[in-house]
Amino acid sequence: MTDTVAYLDAHRERNLEELFDFLRIPSVSAKSDHDAETARAANWLADRMREAGLGAEVLPTDGHPVVLGEWREAGPDAPTILIYGHYDVQPAEPLELWSSPAFEPEIRDGRVYARGSADDKGQLYMHVKAIQALLETTGSLPANVVVVAEGEEEVGSPNLVPFVERMRDRLAADVVVISDSAMFAPGQPSLLFSLRGLAYVEVHVSAAKGDLHSGAYGGAVPNPATELARMLTTLHDAAGRIAIPGFYDDVVEWSEETRSAIRALDFDEEEFRAGVGSPGLHGEAGYSTLERLWIRPTCEVNGLLSGWTGEGAKTVLPAKAMAKVSFRLVPDQSPARVAELMEAHLREVAPPWVRVEVKELHGGNPWKADPSGPLFEAASVALEEAFGRAPVIVGEGGSIPIVGDFERILGCPALLVGFALPGCNMHAPDEWFTVENYERGTTSLCRLYGELAERLGSAG
Amino acid sequence: MTDTVAYLDAHRERNLEELFDFLRIPSVSAKSDHDAETARAANWLADRMREAGLGAEVLPTDGHPVVLGEWREAGPDAPTILIYGHYDVQPAEPLELWSSPAFEPEIRDGRVYARGSADDKGQLYMHVKAIQALLETTGSLPANVVVVAEGEEEVGSPNLVPFVERMRDRLAADVVVISDSAMFAPGQPSLLFSLRGLAYVEVHVSAAKGDLHSGAYGGAVPNPATELARMLTTLHDAAGRIAIPGFYDDVVEWSEETRSAIRALDFDEEEFRAGVGSPGLHGEAGYSTLERLWIRPTCEVNGLLSGWTGEGAKTVLPAKAMAKVSFRLVPDQSPARVAELMEAHLREVAPPWVRVEVKELHGGNPWKADPSGPLFEAASVALEEAFGRAPVIVGEGGSIPIVGDFERILGCPALLVGFALPGCNMHAPDEWFTVENYERGTTSLCRLYGELAERLGSAG
Repeated sequence: MTDTVAYLDAHRERNLEELFDFLRIPSVSAKSDHDAETARAANWLADRMREAGLGAEVLPTDGHPVVLGEWREAGPDAPTILIYGHYDVQPAEPLELWSSPAFEPEIRDGRVYARGSADDKGQLYMHVKAIQALLETTGSLPANVVVVAEGEEEVGSPNLVPFVERMRDRLAADVVVISDSAMFAPGQPSLLFSLRGLAYVEVHVSAAKGDLHSGAYGGAVPNPATELARMLTTLHDAAGRIAIPGFYDDVVEWSEETRSAIRALDFDEEEFRAGVGSPGLHGEAGYSTLERLWIRPTCEVNGLLSGWTGEGAKTVLPAKAMAKVSFRLVPDQSPARVAELMEAHLREVAPPWVRVEVKELHGGNPWKADPSGPLFEAASVALEEAFGRAPVIVGEGGSIPIVGDFERILGCPALLVGFALPGCNMHAPDEWFTVENYERGTTSLCRLYGELAERLGSAG
Repeated sequence: MTDTVAYLDAHRERNLEELFDFLRIPSVSAKSDHDAETARAANWLADRMREAGLGAEVLPTDGHPVVLGEWREAGPDAPTILIYGHYDVQPAEPLELWSSPAFEPEIRDGRVYARGSADDKGQLYMHVKAIQALLETTGSLPANVVVVAEGEEEVGSPNLVPFVERMRDRLAADVVVISDSAMFAPGQPSLLFSLRGLAYVEVHVSAAKGDLHSGAYGGAVPNPATELARMLTTLHDAAGRIAIPGFYDDVVEWSEETRSAIRALDFDEEEFRAGVGSPGLHGEAGYSTLERLWIRPTCEVNGLLSGWTGEGAKTVLPAKAMAKVSFRLVPDQSPARVAELMEAHLREVAPPWVRVEVKELHGGNPWKADPSGPLFEAASVALEEAFGRAPVIVGEGGSIPIVGDFERILGCPALLVGFALPGCNMHAPDEWFTVENYERGTTSLCRLYGELAERLGSAG
């Protein structure tokens, strides 16, 4: 590793300049008038992969192409590491809120400011540079490596699952490494141990066949808005727990070890509260804010609509009311089961004088890693060496369905190790990524491949 | 009265033709491009009043003028009857839903179809024709008579209260007679004994300073939509009663006599339910549908808005939620007091982790008549003679603030006697008014003036 670290040190400037070139390409997947730029980013990346020593192909999909990089010289008996990232970026709008142009990267205070610097070009390109450093200095990689870089992550990855299913044999791997998330704090390397799943439903309550005059009919004809509010109120109990019968049946309790690790994190609830600007925080009794966000399921009203919502005092008795309600799920909850329990519960609590319709809109499985297994062990060694500090475990309240998809289709576990920092403005103006994490992270990845190969080789 | 009835019978055709002329003028007060027509209707009406034997003036206001008709020859010691009506009409749109053009009156099945036939040109013009019949056949009226016909009722009467206040002395009267409502059923004359008041508020609940990602923040940051639903649920108890402390303090219990009279009405709850198209009816326990609509207060959600209400599954944790809530009030509730109790209640039940703002939008006082007093007695005699059936008492769930305004400013009671029929499409396409009620009603009004004069003369 000494030579590899020296090589990376010697090529700091080049590695940064190349990243700048990558960031200058406005590969905004959501905008069809940017399609040529998105394609250019794919080709640029394939060229850089080839320079790094990977075989690279730009493979078409029904949308933007997948860039596939491969190095298979470790041989069929060696383990295979699959690396996933994406070369597309969010739109940069509103442009006027950027301090420097979104696609003209600039370093200020040790941060690279540009759209995609953190999400995910910077983090994806670290892998390419790590692979190159190892190949240039050791002539080989400690495992077979496959890089899958998609161009549609920011539009929901509509073609990724079909791609992975179609290429299942070629993508067969022992681990999927993903660098598209954040560290808990500056200087504090982090390993993601949980992602919440999602079950999203739309609830429609109706009574009269049309809106009525609230004077002429109010008091005698059911009010769907009132009934919907009452139904929504039954979703939680006084302790902030979800009161749908059976909801917690499949919820796995996390080990005391994991809960202790979360409690040990340097997290200031008051700072968090002030940051979101709420008069207070509120959630399930008996759990801390981080636990509520990472390891406990939720039920949130995402939208409400009924009757007159414009200006002034329209005296309407609404004929219908709608709520969007979503659940964040934790292992081993299933979106379909939760949607089913929700519908059964609403039908149970709905009064006979209204109609209720429940539509299932969207679902995604929760995911969790084993913080005591070989993947975290390998990553801990690699990260501690590069950052001078052992990683902490962090959860993610949101959902990244592709993680579960990779595990399901390829039958191998995922390892999520990210290098962005809190407040890095992913999806917002002035997105940034620190030069320090770009460089230290690359070093850590060189070591990570070896640590993983060692453990997966003996396991596989 | 024999001569007067014979006179009306002899002039049936003329009285109907004149009404048709009135209905042909599209005096749509809401449309400024119809202002010339609205002015033409006022002048036409003043001319007809003069022909009937009234002194008539078209008096300007800040909006459409008031037509004032007067006959004061009964002398200063005789009682004065003030008649209120309006010559403006609702817009006729959607025009394509009319079976015959809105401003080309046509008789089908004994009904005059035209905009304004029931609301209120037909009912207002009956008074003019009754006055004319009495003057032509008896040479006088049994009391001094003042007719106030406004041209802005369909736009909320913005200039009526200032007009009445300014003209307080000239409009001084012993009773205000208003014919702008409906009978309970065909052939069943009716007297309005109650109008509900209104208190309308807008409730805003907020937490975070902006919308958040429901995955990244859900479960730990308060959800204003959930909290608003919970707050709205506290507004009623399980028996459908309003659960705001103090809400019923000022509610007058109606006499057993009034409740018996309501119960005696031929009202089919199942037919009503099927008519509104709701799976069931619901309201305050212990009261019938008509009681819930006429003599009991209500609390209705008129509108709900929060978060994402468009298509699909946007995972937003809303920063705010809004509800429009209105109360229909009964004597002796006051809009200001109810809005105050509502705000105090919401502040009491709101959790400390959200902000609550309550805006008072609109208010109107409830009204009730004394069904056992001299006005109902006079009207009963007059209506029974004309329709061959004693009138029933009916309530109105909606609010007509001007009734209370007249009583307050002029210090005299109001008598609401209407001749439209249920289903007559006021404010809708194919508005109609029966020829039978136009004619019988006019006869009943001739008698009503006398019966009122007799009772008010001795009372005043």
